[in-house]
Amino acid sequence: MKRVLLVVAYDGTAYHGFQKQDNAGSIEEELNKALFYLTGEEIEVIGASRTDSGVHALGNLAVFDTESPIPGEKFSYALNQRLPGDIRIRESKEVDADYHPRKTGLKKTYEYRIFSSEFPLPTRRLYTCFSYHTFDVPAMDEAGKCLIGEHDFTSFCTVGAQVDSKVRTITDVTVYQEGDEIVIRVTGTGFLYNMVRIIAGTLMEVGLGRMAKEDVAAALEAKERNAAGPTAPACGLTLIGYHA
Amino acid sequence: MKRVLLVVAYDGTAYHGFQKQDNAGSIEEELNKALFYLTGEEIEVIGASRTDSGVHALGNLAVFDTESPIPGEKFSYALNQRLPGDIRIRESKEVDADYHPRKTGLKKTYEYRIFSSEFPLPTRRLYTCFSYHTFDVPAMDEAGKCLIGEHDFTSFCTVGAQVDSKVRTITDVTVYQEGDEIVIRVTGTGFLYNMVRIIAGTLMEVGLGRMAKEDVAAALEAKERNAAGPTAPACGLTLIGYHA
Repeated sequence: MKRVLLVVAYDGTAYHGFQKQDNAGSIEEELNKALFYLTGEEIEVIGASRTDSGVHALGNLAVFDTESPIPGEKFSYALNQRLPGDIRIRESKEVDADYHPRKTGLKKTYEYRIFSSEFPLPTRRLYTCFSYHTFDVPAMDEAGKCLIGEHDFTSFCTVGAQVDSKVRTITDVTVYQEGDEIVIRVTGTGFLYNMVRIIAGTLMEVGLGRMAKEDVAAALEAKERNAAGPTAPACGLTLIGYHA
Repeated sequence: MKRVLLVVAYDGTAYHGFQKQDNAGSIEEELNKALFYLTGEEIEVIGASRTDSGVHALGNLAVFDTESPIPGEKFSYALNQRLPGDIRIRESKEVDADYHPRKTGLKKTYEYRIFSSEFPLPTRRLYTCFSYHTFDVPAMDEAGKCLIGEHDFTSFCTVGAQVDSKVRTITDVTVYQEGDEIVIRVTGTGFLYNMVRIIAGTLMEVGLGRMAKEDVAAALEAKERNAAGPTAPACGLTLIGYHA
């Protein structure tokens, strides 16, 4: 028996999120299916991030245990032959039997992309959030810095999420312009349900002049969901990856 | 009766090209259907470029005649309510009754995008051609310049295309790096079947060191298809638009 780690990239458009659902397709289900075709074993992978429906990833993590004689580093090639084109294994390797993808101590980085233009181009609709407005990007960057540190992020978490503590640590928030897209890059050691999308929605309010930097700091203090901005649409969000 | 011009953007992934087919979905069919819902008239649009299956456009042109009292410039809003999200009308306006989208004398610009990387990211698969290789971009740009001017482009046209003359005029070819993508930008007054994809495939050969600039000039002279490089995949191609 060995434990194998997968680094998984996917276009989340066609899936109802990472986690297996009874009545809808998921990344996890596709991985389990490809592993069954490959090994004959009924494997259930354990994912690091349960990304939402429509959210993309360049480097999510998943592990599984197998009796297969296939060397750990060969699983990436073998699985890519059996997975649909919108899911790709970037890397695979054997890890220790007690390695758990949600207990690595690694930081993770998300990117939220806004396509700010006169017209919503169909070729950008899947990976960005479109807006007719123009945004004050330096103001967004400055307001984003208020969120860095260890805080109670209750205001930035969907109401009803079942967690013991809403204290999380964000190590960086940077907002910059890249061509006609605005990128909100958030790094932290852990995130609450919808947290990055609520941060993005709040910083968009700042960029449109509807909230000031002080309002973002106050929203954090308030510890209630309606003090922060709206939840930005899923399609603009990509989990870039895990890193030290 | 009036003639209305549409500027159409689309993600070509889900369609078998612009032109109506008996047994497969097309951009033209979607436009006709939306116009029927809107006006009750059985309208058949006339498109400027018959883009291939999987090819994208930011600004293709189409015209139609209608008895509808809707002002020309309002069709864009009304049609966008009735079209799928992967087809968007950027602009609409009334034009002269003898305006024909293939006889405007306008130039058109195409972009072919190569995603050159260590790994084929799923979120880039629809709008770029992936390659594990690295390309000599300045050599591609230099070789591309050989194609500028009025030439017989027989070597850059799929065998069997039914046209009287294979003489066309290219006014510019520019190849440049943009982040991890290589962009081949081609402008001309008219193009043969698959011409831009064969130009892209040929310049990729140059970028990989398999053909020299002189070979591209010789391919043009040869006037036979197999003297040029392969036809690059459709998904990397986007019709940017028409312009003076």
